[in-house]
Order: sequence, then C-alpha cells, then structure tokens
Amino acid sequence: MTSVESITQSLAGLSIQPAAVITHDATSAANWRETLQTSSSAPQSFETLKTMVYKPKTAKTATPIPLVIIARENTEVNSTAVGKKLNLKEVRVASEDLLSEFFALDKNSLSPLMLTAETYPKVVTVFDASIASSSSLFAVRARSSTSTLFLQGKDILAYLRTLQTQDAPLQEIDFEALKAESEAVPASQTKAAPAKKEREDAKIDGAVQIAIGIKKEVDFAGWYTNVLIKADMLDYYNVSGCYILRPWSYSIWEVIQDWFNARIREMGVQNAYFPMFVSSRVLEREKDHIEGFSPEVAWVTRAGQSELDEPIAIRPTSETVMYPYYAKWIKSHRDLPLKLNQWNNVVRWEFKNPQPFLRTREFLWQEGHTAFLTKEEADKEVREILDLYRQVYEDLLAVPVIQGVKSEKEKFAGGLYTTTVEGFVPTTGRGIQAGTSHCLGQNFSRPEMFNIFVEDPNDTTKKAYIWQNSWGLSTRTIGVMVMIHGDNQGLVLPPRVASIQVVIVPCGVTAKTSDEQRKAISDKCDELANVLKSVGVKAKADLREGYTPGFKFNDWEQKGVPLRLEIGPADLAKNQTLTVRRDTGIKAPLPLADVTTAVPKLLDTIQADMFKRAQDTYFSRLKQVTRWEDVVPTLDDKCVVVMPWCEEEACEDDIKERSARSAEPQDERAPSAGAKSLCIPFDQSRWPSIEPGKTKCAACGKDAKRWTMFGRSY
Amino acid sequence: MTSVESITQSLAGLSIQPAAVITHDATSAANWRETLQTSSSAPQSFETLKTMVYKPKTAKTATPIPLVIIARENTEVNSTAVGKKLNLKEVRVASEDLLSEFFALDKNSLSPLMLTAETYPKVVTVFDASIASSSSLFAVRARSSTSTLFLQGKDILAYLRTLQTQDAPLQEIDFEALKAESEAVPASQTKAAPAKKEREDAKIDGAVQIAIGIKKEVDFAGWYTNVLIKADMLDYYNVSGCYILRPWSYSIWEVIQDWFNARIREMGVQNAYFPMFVSSRVLEREKDHIEGFSPEVAWVTRAGQSELDEPIAIRPTSETVMYPYYAKWIKSHRDLPLKLNQWNNVVRWEFKNPQPFLRTREFLWQEGHTAFLTKEEADKEVREILDLYRQVYEDLLAVPVIQGVKSEKEKFAGGLYTTTVEGFVPTTGRGIQAGTSHCLGQNFSRPEMFNIFVEDPNDTTKKAYIWQNSWGLSTRTIGVMVMIHGDNQGLVLPPRVASIQVVIVPCGVTAKTSDEQRKAISDKCDELANVLKSVGVKAKADLREGYTPGFKFNDWEQKGVPLRLEIGPADLAKNQTLTVRRDTGIKAPLPLADVTTAVPKLLDTIQADMFKRAQDTYFSRLKQVTRWEDVVPTLDDKCVVVMPWCEEEACEDDIKERSARSAEPQDERAPSAGAKSLCIPFDQSRWPSIEPGKTKCAACGKDAKRWTMFGRSY
Repeated sequence: MTSVESITQSLAGLSIQPAAVITHDATSAANWRETLQTSSSAPQSFETLKTMVYKPKTAKTATPIPLVIIARENTEVNSTAVGKKLNLKEVRVASEDLLSEFFALDKNSLSPLMLTAETYPKVVTVFDASIASSSSLFAVRARSSTSTLFLQGKDILAYLRTLQTQDAPLQEIDFEALKAESEAVPASQTKAAPAKKEREDAKIDGAVQIAIGIKKEVDFAGWYTNVLIKADMLDYYNVSGCYILRPWSYSIWEVIQDWFNARIREMGVQNAYFPMFVSSRVLEREKDHIEGFSPEVAWVTRAGQSELDEPIAIRPTSETVMYPYYAKWIKSHRDLPLKLNQWNNVVRWEFKNPQPFLRTREFLWQEGHTAFLTKEEADKEVREILDLYRQVYEDLLAVPVIQGVKSEKEKFAGGLYTTTVEGFVPTTGRGIQAGTSHCLGQNFSRPEMFNIFVEDPNDTTKKAYIWQNSWGLSTRTIGVMVMIHGDNQGLVLPPRVASIQVVIVPCGVTAKTSDEQRKAISDKCDELANVLKSVGVKAKADLREGYTPGFKFNDWEQKGVPLRLEIGPADLAKNQTLTVRRDTGIKAPLPLADVTTAVPKLLDTIQADMFKRAQDTYFSRLKQVTRWEDVVPTLDDKCVVVMPWCEEEACEDDIKERSARSAEPQDERAPSAGAKSLCIPFDQSRWPSIEPGKTKCAACGKDAKRWTMFGRSY
Repeated sequence: MTSVESITQSLAGLSIQPAAVITHDATSAANWRETLQTSSSAPQSFETLKTMVYKPKTAKTATPIPLVIIARENTEVNSTAVGKKLNLKEVRVASEDLLSEFFALDKNSLSPLMLTAETYPKVVTVFDASIASSSSLFAVRARSSTSTLFLQGKDILAYLRTLQTQDAPLQEIDFEALKAESEAVPASQTKAAPAKKEREDAKIDGAVQIAIGIKKEVDFAGWYTNVLIKADMLDYYNVSGCYILRPWSYSIWEVIQDWFNARIREMGVQNAYFPMFVSSRVLEREKDHIEGFSPEVAWVTRAGQSELDEPIAIRPTSETVMYPYYAKWIKSHRDLPLKLNQWNNVVRWEFKNPQPFLRTREFLWQEGHTAFLTKEEADKEVREILDLYRQVYEDLLAVPVIQGVKSEKEKFAGGLYTTTVEGFVPTTGRGIQAGTSHCLGQNFSRPEMFNIFVEDPNDTTKKAYIWQNSWGLSTRTIGVMVMIHGDNQGLVLPPRVASIQVVIVPCGVTAKTSDEQRKAISDKCDELANVLKSVGVKAKADLREGYTPGFKFNDWEQKGVPLRLEIGPADLAKNQTLTVRRDTGIKAPLPLADVTTAVPKLLDTIQADMFKRAQDTYFSRLKQVTRWEDVVPTLDDKCVVVMPWCEEEACEDDIKERSARSAEPQDERAPSAGAKSLCIPFDQSRWPSIEPGKTKCAACGKDAKRWTMFGRSY
C-alpha cells in the first residue's frame, strides 16, 4: 500500500474525502506550490501550510521532544512566544539530523500528514487555530511527497485529533491572540534593565531565522525563493514561469532604468516602442537567429472566438520586429547612426525549470538596436554599452562582474560576436551571464536578409551594408543581486538601489514612558527622516502603532534596508542615534548634529564595502588552471576555472561532457552539471602571457589562444 | 473588361508580368498601405509611390497643362525646382477640380497606371529616375482603385514610355542631383537682396503643403495619419492594428510618465509589474467584467511546437490578473489602503477600423488598482486621479477636457461607476473619451468573486469587504493632442511635452559669406542652445550641413517644434535673434541678452495660448439643447449637445438610434453615426438648474435628472 493510499484510507475512516488529489514528481519545496498552481486538477483556490520543527532546550542526557508547529503560510509564528506559552525553554530550529531521526524525512517533506500514531506521541504538536475556522482548502503533501491532498482545515484538525493522546494533546493556538499577548508589555518587564531589553530583541532576531526558514548554505534554491517572498519582492503567479514583481523589487528596476536612460541619452540613443507581435513570415526570415528562439516562441492563434488566418508570435527579442523598418528609414548615410532602445516585456516559453528573475517565461528588459556605417563605430559602441552594464552591476547593485567575449558556441545566434558581463554566485559556485552586448556585424543587413544599405559615401557606385549592434539587460539583474548579497536574515540591499535607504525606529518606549516623551521620540524620528530627505537620503520613520521595535527591526532587516537608526529616551537625552548596518550588523552611536554628512557617508561606505566583499570573494574563486585533472576538482570546489584554451567548439563540447561525466543525469541546475565557457576576459593581464605555439589548451592539448573562464552556470 | 484586366493586358503586350495582383476594397489612401501590408498575397517587401499633380501658372484663357510627378515615397520632391528645370511658372498643387477634369479621379486614386494614351499627351510627366534603377517591387494601384499590382521599377518606366510622344516626352529626373543643383547657390543669386532670399524660403514653405499632402479640413483621417508619419511620430507595422511609436512620440509618453509618477507617488501609490498572461479560468471569473472584453481577447495556444493544455489570454486589462493576489495580501485593515500602479502593454483585438493611438490592438497605458476600507476613501481617490488626468491633458498637452461621470450604459463593465475626462475634436465635431477613473465598489471583492475582506475594525465579528478603484490613461493622449493642435503644416507640439522646444537655425549664409562669419553664426547658434539648456529649455541648434534653412524650417515645422530662433549675419550684428512661433507663425526679434528670461516666458505663453484657443473652441461647440428637434442639427453642425436627461438606459439606446437614423449603414467613424452620452458633467452650474419634476428629458420627455453631454464620438 502506498503512503497516499494509506492516508486516504485513514481519512476515509473519518468520513473525510479530499477535494482533490494530485500526483506529481518529488519536487523541491520551492517548486511544489508552482506545480500545484499550474495543475489543471488543483482546485481554483487553495492555501498552503507551513510545518516547522523546533527543538527546545533539553538536558543532554534526556531525549529531546521536538515542537511541531503547523500554521497557515501567512500566519506570523513567534516560536519564542509559543515556547513560553508551553513552558518550553529556548526553542531553536531543529537540525536536519533531528528531522531524519524522528520522521525519516527532510524538511521539504514536512506536512501535517507525516504525523502518524507512531511519531505523534513523541512530539509536541501546535496547530494554528485559524486553519480549522477557515473556509479555504489546504494543500497537504502525503508522506510520499509525490502526492498532494486538498483538504478542509477542519478535516486536517480532525485527522490530527485522532492521533492525540492524554500525554500528547494537540495544542490549538490562536496566533493573533498570542501576538497581542506577547506585545502587551507587562508592567514587571518594563522595569527591567536595558540588558534585558536587548535580550528580548535578540530573541526576536532569532525569529527572523524562522521567518526565512531555510538557510542559504543548506538549500540555496529554497532560501532564494523564500527571501524573495518574505521581503515582498515577488509573488508566485498562477501561470507557470510568470511572477509578480512587487514594488519592493520593481523600484530597483526603476532605479536601473533611470540611471541607464540618462547614460544612453548622452550617447544619442532614443527610446521608442515597437509592437510585441511578429508575423510568422517576418519572424522566420533570419533562420540562424530564429533557430535559437523558435522552440520557445509563444503563438497567438485566436482572437475572441475567431481563429487568426496566420499565427502571430510574441517577440522573444525584437531584431526581426525592428529591422524591416530600419531598412525603410535608413536611406542615406545621413540617417546613420540610428540608435533606438526600448524597455519592454518579452516572452520565451522556457520548458526548463523556471526561477524567479533568472529564468522566467515573461521578463522585462531593455533592448537597444543600433546601426552604423562602419564596423569601427559598431565595435566602439558594443564596448561602451558593456561598460554601462558593468556599472549597473558594480556601481548600483554592488555586484562584481568580469567583462569578456563569448565563445562561438555561446554567442548570440545570428550575430557576429557577443560581449558579456559575467557574474558569480559564491554559494553555488556558479557563473551567471549578467548582460550581453552583441555586434551583429552585417548579418542582418545583407541583401538576402533585411537588405539595409546606403550609398557608400566614399564610392557612390557601391552599396554600403550597415553594421548593427543589439544589447540587452533584464530584470535578471535583481535576482543576481539578491543571490549575492542576501543572508539568513533576508535581503541585503545596496544603498544605491534601495527605495528606503534608512529606516528610523523609535525604541525603548515602555508603559512607564510619559506621553510627552513618547511624542518627543516620535517627533524626533520624524524630524530626522525629514532632515535626511532634505539631503537626498531616502529615509523613512517607522511610526507604526501596535508593533514592537523588535518586530520592526526584523521586518526591515528581512527587506534589506541598508541602515537602521534607533532613537530611544537615552539617545534623545544625548542628542544621538544608534546606527545599525544591515550588511555587517555593526552598531555605532552617531550625534544627531552630524547626520546630514555622516549618514550619506555611511551609506557610501556600505555600498563600497558590499562591493569589495563580493569582489574579493569572486576573485578568490577564480582559479588559474593549466592541467585538465584540476578542472573538475576546482569546479567541485565551487570555483570558476580560468585556463588557456584553444577556442574550438568541439573542445568546448568535450569539456562540458567530461566535466559532467561523474554526475547523475539530472537537470542543469544540479551542482555537478557540465561546465561551459563563461567568457574570454578582455583583461588577460591577470594571467601569464599565452605563448603562441607553446601554451597548450588545458582541455585538449592543442595550441591555446587566450585564458578563458569555464564554470558551471545558470 | 475591367480596368485591371485592361492594364494587365497592356502590360502583357510589353512582356511584363506583375509579381502579384491583389484585389481589395476601395480603401482610402491611409488604409491602402495597411491593407497591402497585411495581405498574405503581397510580396514580402515592396515600396509605394507618390503621384502628385501640380498646375503651373497659365494664362487664364489657355488650357492648363498639369504637371504629374511620380516619385518614390521617400524621394524629396521639390516641385519648385522641377518647375524651374522644365521652365514652368509658379507650380502649385492642383485642385481637386483639375484632377477630376483631367483624370476623372480623386487624389487618392492617383497612380502611374492612371495615365493612358488618352490623358498622357495632355500632361507633363516627370518620373523619379531612382525608381527604374531600384531592385524594389512597387505597389501600384490599377485605375479601378480596387486592385494593386506589384511591378518592377523598370517595368513601370517601360509602360510609361509606351505612352510618350514627340510632344510629350517622359521627363526622367534624378531628384538627388536636382536637389544638389538647387542647393548650390549660384554666384548671381548670392548677390541678390535679402528680399529675394526671403522669397526663396517662402517657396520652400509652400512645399510643406505638398509634404503633408492632405488638408486637415478636407480629409481628416488621411491628414491625421500623414501628419503622424511625416512628423516621425509613428510608422505602420505589418501586423494590422499595431503601430511603431518612434522616439518623437514615445518621448511625449515619457514626459507624461514622469509627471504622473511623481504625482501618484505623493499619493502613496507604488509601481509594480504583474504578468501579461491570464489563465482562462481566472479571466472568466468575473462574468460581467469579462463580457465586455471577451470578443477582443488574444489567446496563446501554442509554445514552440507544443500545444498548451489550456489556452492563455493576453491581458486586456489586469483586474483579474491582480485581484487574486490582493485577496492574498490584504489580511488586515493595516494592509489598507493598497495602491499599486503599472505601466504596461495590453491587447484588445479590435475588429473595428484601427486608428493610430486611438484604437490599436496593442497599446501602452498605466493602470492603477487600489483598495480601501471605506467607500469614502475610494470615492475621494477616484476624483483625485481624474483630476490628475485633467492636468495631463490641460497642463501638459494643452488639451481641454470636461470631467464627469459616465452613464450606466457607458460605464466600465463590472464597476460601480466610471468618471471620465472627455475631450473634443473640433474638425470632426466628435467627442473623445480621454481617460477614465473607475470606482469598482465591492463588486470584485465580494465572496463569490475574489473574496477580499478584512476583519471590520469597528465590529470584529464582521467581515468588511474592501472598496476598489481602477484607473487608466493610455497613449491615446498623444493622438488626441495631434488631432487638436496639428495643422496643414504638420504637428504642433505644446512646449511642455516637446522633446525639442526650441530649434535654432543659422540663416543667410551665402557663397559670399566668409568662413569666419559662417563660423561665427554657427558658434552663436551653438552658444545660444547651450545658454537655453542651462536654464532648462530643451534647445537644439540645427547645424546640419547640406540642407537649406528653408528645408530645416519645414522639417521642424512638420515635427511641431514650438519655437524657432533664426540667426543670420544681420542678427549677429544686432546681437539679436528672430523668434518664430509654430502655433501662430508670429515672428519677432529678440535681443540675445534677454533669451534666458524671454524664451521660457514665450514658451509659457505658447502653452497657455494653445490651451486657451482649444478651450474656447470646445466651449463654443458645447450647445445647450432642450428640444429633440435641435439635437441632430446640432450634431450635424459638428457640435456636442448638452441637454437635460432622464439617465435611463432605454432612452440612451433610443437617442443613439434616432440620431443615426438618417445615416446610411456604415462604420462608427462616419460623421452621421448615432450619438451616445459622453458624460454627465460634474460642474452642472454652467447650465440652468434642473427643476425636479419640471425639467424634462430632451429626448423622451420624462423627468430630467442632470445636464448630460451627448455627441458623436471616437
């Protein structure tokens, strides 16, 4: 009997019939919700639950009794408060070992249904009371992890109740009420010394770990999506591979847009907007180019109730949309250069595993398309744009990148050559293509293609086919930034892209605090925010009523605000504020008189430090390798290989195959996937000179041309 | 024998086989190109020709000999220069009378193939030499106007050559060479007095009329598309109903975006981005709402080679995309208000006649979606946003609008009520819905819909369903602005949205001008541009070589630049510049010392004057009517009716029918189409008080409620 059969049988015994049962792959937690949302068998709407396991402090000799909390995804769970209520000491997130010991399960498989008559008595189970009173359906994994049942909240409760014993009663907790209790500061506590206060905060700090729930080093993919969701950056959407960009992430995109627009305007690039639709006839005109995209093109075939005569594609990129009009507009060398850019959405219906920001079916980007009379002008612009991309990453997002050229295999289909900025995600040791600037050469302008030419100004009897570039930067920028800077407390935003750079939190207000002093603190926070805004700092005073300072600290830490300023009665008296850096956690007092100079300076320091740390890490993981036997161990060590390379495509194919050989067959995201060339860095001076005819390719032994970065990648 | 048969027979006699022949409706010139581009029988690429007829000055008693010029669409035709070359005097655009007299054709039917053995000897025919040497195919209308042939340039030439006689030889002209000749200033002319110089410019000014080609008052639709294309605002695209927004129009949209973003940010609205795709299940959840859109929804059914399990819609608007997530995010009254906005593209696959900016299948807009605890807050915001829309029109685009509420019939499907800003296009006498701000009430939040509620803060036992608004403003703004301000010289841009507000043109440079003086003028233009830029004026010095001042004047007038500054040797000597207003043509000298204050002031004056003139016109065409018999004559007089109205839907249906009764059955764009309610103006004080029970509905005689605007509309 499979576990899903066994569980449905148990439920049937209680006269419980699941609203639906879905069978699926043993997907990771991050993909599970998406799997359900895109399944046609799933109910129209449902919620998911979180099942968390904690270990209270136990004498070393005693058998630990884990605490299992089952709550709605949106319920704010304060495990400390739960522990206090149940008289459990120092509740901590349970280790993976404990999980497998007790439940023979990893954390991704946790679900209320994993509790059986055997395991239940060994744990303390807490059940979010709002589940049973909700009219929602809840998606619950069966023990097998490959089935999901959709159940009423009251039925989940009914099931758990069948398991409870005299010694192990089911604890139903109203978390809203618990929160209100724990936020009401009892008189006894307000008298406590500041030291006590700090410990309170520390505990709540601990709760953040619970909020993110998954450690970056342990389950990077799970951590990533959790950070995005908890920081209000993004939400999953019910069309697979599409995501909602919430204001907290979209505002970063707006900063990038404004900055980039100003720069390209100086270069004479103008913004425009071309239609999102391409007729199949036009799309298929450039065979080499479209071959790279055609498996991913979304087709509109129907409007209202009418079938279209001819299917119409949604742009995967706009070369074929724009260039017929370039041919029309460019009639003389006086019409050159033509430099257009657009900010738009494009669709690439990827069938690989989608990942927010990194690989999505619809994404936002800018695409620049420029036309020149000469190759020299085109070459020059390719590099100027690439350097702007570098600046977006390094100067705005504090993300180090390496500039270089792509191998023939990795270049843009249909172009002449592709330049790239390559990033690096240390946690996985994988490279990530961060932005590309292509020289298309005359491949699109030649007569059998779009036929874009002018009379050669030097020889009017000749046609001069134009030289073209295209270059694009997408919202992937945001994903890379999150992966590199985020930590187990949540997001960490570089000041230059943070929509709130400084949050000011009033502290130390107790039941004893006079209304007057309370107001004085609150006013000072407000005043401070205004003073900072007047010098261009994006500051916000968090004066929300009904939330503890600890809650606010967590909230803003999770959202990655670069700097927190605290103002309490003592600060007020000393005319100072306490600064707390998000990136390092370093706290330091600051005289209020100095804020207008010190805060902007501190933000600059944070920005610079974040970049420096990330760059040091990147460089330390860039390993010079000259022997094939060192390649795979280096990759396995989460590093990027830089090696002398012959630049031959067959050799690149071979490297990919040989570096993956040891891995089981699985998706590209597996850490043991094959390596590909990331780029041939422009700056070769970092490594010893390649001696023609002497330096050999580390992979195949033929003559090497240049040092090339190889790595596993996104 | 039909004319297409007769012409193909003539061609066959010359062994000419058209590459393709398309049969179509007798569409207007503006739609013809689109008809061809969207026809599957048309060749992949082709050019069109322009055939222009002029009348040289002739003695009153003599029979005029028209001049027919056949040129490529992109060839710059200077009819004055042609006239000079052929010794024809004062070449003027021919009247419609002349056309019908000579060719029994209107100007939209002109084509090289209209010339027959009978008509050819009576005219002088000029043929653009670059046609015959081009490898393009050319689309040429047959005499019937309902067929188009695609021919090689050399074949068109061959056909025309069969018609020529000793007395009427075909004049082949190389227009590039002609231009070079006419721009080379002969020594004799440089000595001419300034008066002579001015006349030269005046002649070239005359050429502008040829460029736009169609008079606003005569063929408004043709004029509109011509202005858009000639001013580089827009180009037609090969997917019907989709258009390319070129930088000259897109920059206006960017001005609107920046202005509106700043205002809504102050109101606490945040920008976000939701996916463009909607699953059919979700889309169809709100029946009333989607009924309004479903005939126009574009469906994606295939990705690459795979059929999708379920078709996915492209958003026609995002209520159903967003509100499931509002339900998820709004859990407490503390989460309210929620105010999100997005700038995006939406698709409504209209089957009506598309019109650039006004009715397009894909368009750009912003859509705001907000949620409140109370109706009062929602009501307040609806009006605040509407007033922002008014300001976009009135303050940025100098377009007057009237604010009011839509009738039940005209309101947003699924909403509670719709407020609107209504514009007016004087040339056609038709109203135009310019922007709408909807209160959705609780229609989308109620349990059977998206079920968005919070605990009522005043009575925690109750659910409080939220109140919602949605509001949108699209690129239609740009179309309205063009229609209202453009003239027969081209576009007229209000200074606040012009990407170039002031163009500075060096003048009076002749062959005799010393290099030194030439440089002094050029430097002064540059300096002036920089001085103006330093005070925030978007100025540009047009220092292009190889173009006459006259050509530059036309170019910038056509593109609608609000103010031209001319600097010639005399100006330089007097340290002044000549200002020329685009809106009025008024010229006035201005001391260079005053430019930093006078130019910004003049731009403000232009902006204010443009608005005032448009508003005076609007108000003068808003006719108070109380008797039914005055309604249709008022509409026919290109006015909007304001009448006491009962506000009943049946009455509105009846008004539409009765006001259209006299018209033939034809598309909505016909001037005789039925009238609908445009809005019930908020400001009723403009008209006598409605006396309850006494004032009667002008249409049905029942009790009137409020004064309501009725009109034919876009």
